[in-house]
Amino acid sequence: MQNIGVVGLGVMGQNLALNIERNGYTVAGFDLNTEKMREIARKFKEKNIFFATDFSKFVELLEKPRKILMMVPAGKPVDDVISQLKPLLSQEDILIDGGNSFFKDTEKRFSELQSLGIHYIGAGVSGGEEGALWGSSIMPGGAPEAWPQVKPFLQAVAAKATDGVPCCDWIGAGGAGHFVKMVHNGIEYGDMQMICEAYFLMEKALGLSPEEMYDIFSRWNSGELNSYLIEITAHIMKRKDPETGKQMIDVILDTAGQKGTGKWTSQIALDLGVPAPTIAESVFSRTLSAIKEQRLKAAEVLRGPVIKFDGDKNEMIKLIRQALYAAKICSYSQGFQLMKAASEEYNWHLKYGAVASIWRAGCIIRAQFLNKIKTAFDNNPGLDNLLLDSYFNEAIQKNQMAWRKVVAFAVEQGIPVPAFSSALAYYDSYRSKRLPANLLQAQRDYFGAHTYERLDKPRGQFFHTEWQKEES
Amino acid sequence: MQNIGVVGLGVMGQNLALNIERNGYTVAGFDLNTEKMREIARKFKEKNIFFATDFSKFVELLEKPRKILMMVPAGKPVDDVISQLKPLLSQEDILIDGGNSFFKDTEKRFSELQSLGIHYIGAGVSGGEEGALWGSSIMPGGAPEAWPQVKPFLQAVAAKATDGVPCCDWIGAGGAGHFVKMVHNGIEYGDMQMICEAYFLMEKALGLSPEEMYDIFSRWNSGELNSYLIEITAHIMKRKDPETGKQMIDVILDTAGQKGTGKWTSQIALDLGVPAPTIAESVFSRTLSAIKEQRLKAAEVLRGPVIKFDGDKNEMIKLIRQALYAAKICSYSQGFQLMKAASEEYNWHLKYGAVASIWRAGCIIRAQFLNKIKTAFDNNPGLDNLLLDSYFNEAIQKNQMAWRKVVAFAVEQGIPVPAFSSALAYYDSYRSKRLPANLLQAQRDYFGAHTYERLDKPRGQFFHTEWQKEES
Repeated sequence: MQNIGVVGLGVMGQNLALNIERNGYTVAGFDLNTEKMREIARKFKEKNIFFATDFSKFVELLEKPRKILMMVPAGKPVDDVISQLKPLLSQEDILIDGGNSFFKDTEKRFSELQSLGIHYIGAGVSGGEEGALWGSSIMPGGAPEAWPQVKPFLQAVAAKATDGVPCCDWIGAGGAGHFVKMVHNGIEYGDMQMICEAYFLMEKALGLSPEEMYDIFSRWNSGELNSYLIEITAHIMKRKDPETGKQMIDVILDTAGQKGTGKWTSQIALDLGVPAPTIAESVFSRTLSAIKEQRLKAAEVLRGPVIKFDGDKNEMIKLIRQALYAAKICSYSQGFQLMKAASEEYNWHLKYGAVASIWRAGCIIRAQFLNKIKTAFDNNPGLDNLLLDSYFNEAIQKNQMAWRKVVAFAVEQGIPVPAFSSALAYYDSYRSKRLPANLLQAQRDYFGAHTYERLDKPRGQFFHTEWQKEES
Repeated sequence: MQNIGVVGLGVMGQNLALNIERNGYTVAGFDLNTEKMREIARKFKEKNIFFATDFSKFVELLEKPRKILMMVPAGKPVDDVISQLKPLLSQEDILIDGGNSFFKDTEKRFSELQSLGIHYIGAGVSGGEEGALWGSSIMPGGAPEAWPQVKPFLQAVAAKATDGVPCCDWIGAGGAGHFVKMVHNGIEYGDMQMICEAYFLMEKALGLSPEEMYDIFSRWNSGELNSYLIEITAHIMKRKDPETGKQMIDVILDTAGQKGTGKWTSQIALDLGVPAPTIAESVFSRTLSAIKEQRLKAAEVLRGPVIKFDGDKNEMIKLIRQALYAAKICSYSQGFQLMKAASEEYNWHLKYGAVASIWRAGCIIRAQFLNKIKTAFDNNPGLDNLLLDSYFNEAIQKNQMAWRKVVAFAVEQGIPVPAFSSALAYYDSYRSKRLPANLLQAQRDYFGAHTYERLDKPRGQFFHTEWQKEES
């Protein structure tokens, strides 16, 4: 009898199976594509990984209570696997969805399986293919009574932070695990967009070559920006295309897709009324990149300033690094505010320090920076916003003039930096005792009698003015 | 027998009933709140408006095929009215939802009632209470076979543009009417936020008083910014609070709510992959205004630049006006791009010139400006983006340096202008032959083997690099 089942043997599923097996477990694998499975079986024949030809033989391979990890695409494929497995499972069996499912789908599946006595866990897994093989960041949520049984193998295959702590811990009930993974991905959208903006400024305004930017990103990676995404950006800059001899970055088409988690993060932020403009701008930037044909036409007729830079390049590079760091802090602030709102809405009791801890290694946004976030929430678990933590507040103070200079420069030069500037507007709004929404409320009361509150009256009292009637 | 039925006698319902009656129709009214209805009956006793005490008597008052306009809040109230009316209606009767329903709900209700032979129309109605009474902008969509029968009374109660054309025309099938109304409201969110940013800059950086701003907004209202929202903003600035003697604007609390249409517009833009960042920023700005308590705390600890302006105030006021106009063009571009994408997705065959025409009077965003949009689409019904129309392109050219100066100034002074700057980033992205998404695609291929396309290969060919393996 095998210890752990894996359904869905794409690269992620295969690598997780190998990782589980390497950690001393035996694995039963299954994929609906039997030809692919046969090939994998040949490849893994020296491993303690065994394969079944159909779902009923697959479940017979597993010791009870069964622990089955699904690694199939979000949406219908997950429901299909569940509906085929459901009649074959026994009470107390544990089914884990390791894909990027929408958290509300996970909630629904959780409730449905709970009524059958099957424990359902939605576990976000980040780290890509390499992470799956050598250590991912894993965010499990759902049936808490099942956690002690899956904890040993999930923590074994998880990445370990530099202090040895596994990047996998219990997140919360229902869809909490997939929610946190979704926010992780939203933050990842923001990080990637902001790095792109730094790259774009260095390329368009400073005329730096990819090789020069390799040096810069490598240097940045040894400072406070140290992170996986900065590290791979440096590697990308260095890489040559064997076909043309050009740098790889210069032959790749500039259109990106956007589907799923980044979009969901923005949409849920809108639903919960949480400001997450920088994440939304990152998603919208991808949609703008996608309409390349329109952009080519537009570039012929829409004019902007002629880009000109005659300052000190090294100084500007330093300013861009500072802008990137300050904007990054605001983007993470938005992500953590969103988790806080969701935790209250859904009664998840999320532990933000633990979330930061889980993200320290294995996942795409892994960074030293997350230790600082962990510390901030360890110091004050009720922290309203990361910006209010003294470390991050000081970091913004130190970098904000640079950030402002960079955004102003980009705006004047006609270089789009939507995430940098959105993060700055977020910062300046958040620290505003007064915002101009008083005018907005007056307008709404004027045309729709929506009423307003007053500065000099307690909250909850609503007033209306007959605006169209002139005073006597 | 009465001509038209109105269900839901809030102020909007009452005013529409009066408007319909004034135009020569007899009206049957009904509201679930019988006490309220009795009061209204007394108030309207000289009018050709008759009231029923329950739904079955209400439908008996109406000539067949019945034409019933529902003016009840979106969501469950609409479903409740439908489920009570359904068994009482006959084939060929026409039911119109004049509220702000979500267009997908309208699609569902349309299909359900169609199967019973009842014609369903979802009609967005904009213009607030005054518009309801004297002329609204009305966007009906749903069952096209019913349009000839409701056209006379809907066009009668609609506002008329200066050329006499009624601001009501057939929008399209299914939920098209409510979709277009939703986008109208999204654009309204953008307009209001951008006016707030102009006001905030004049107040915070230039230290102008509401009375001074009354003059400015009044002047702006006679130029290319001429619009209802600028007009009422001027009125608001002038208005004194009888209680304190202060200007009204200075006693109103600066927190705004956001629910429904603005949020939906942003979420649907994300779903359809259409860039609508300026509308989304406007919604997020409201969420930031709403967390006033946090802002008060944050204002104590988060620092920014000391605001300082020693330039020519009149010159800066002019620049702000130019920035507002340029940003407004981009916000409308986003709204029309969104309608275009939805029209393709849902097969609605929207006529964008007709939409602009309908918005010229009666509604909250009514403005001279909409004549220019109408002309742009009349000249080129297939126009990809308003920015590519020569009038709007020239307008942006004329104003963009001012716009850049204003955003750069705000950024340096620490005054948040999220919509101004987001619109500018949209403009600069849209006119970019190249965006930095090539780096993003390289990153995604690096950590997730997502593949990329190449600049030197036809679209649709996908490549992958083994980034971790160094070249030999």
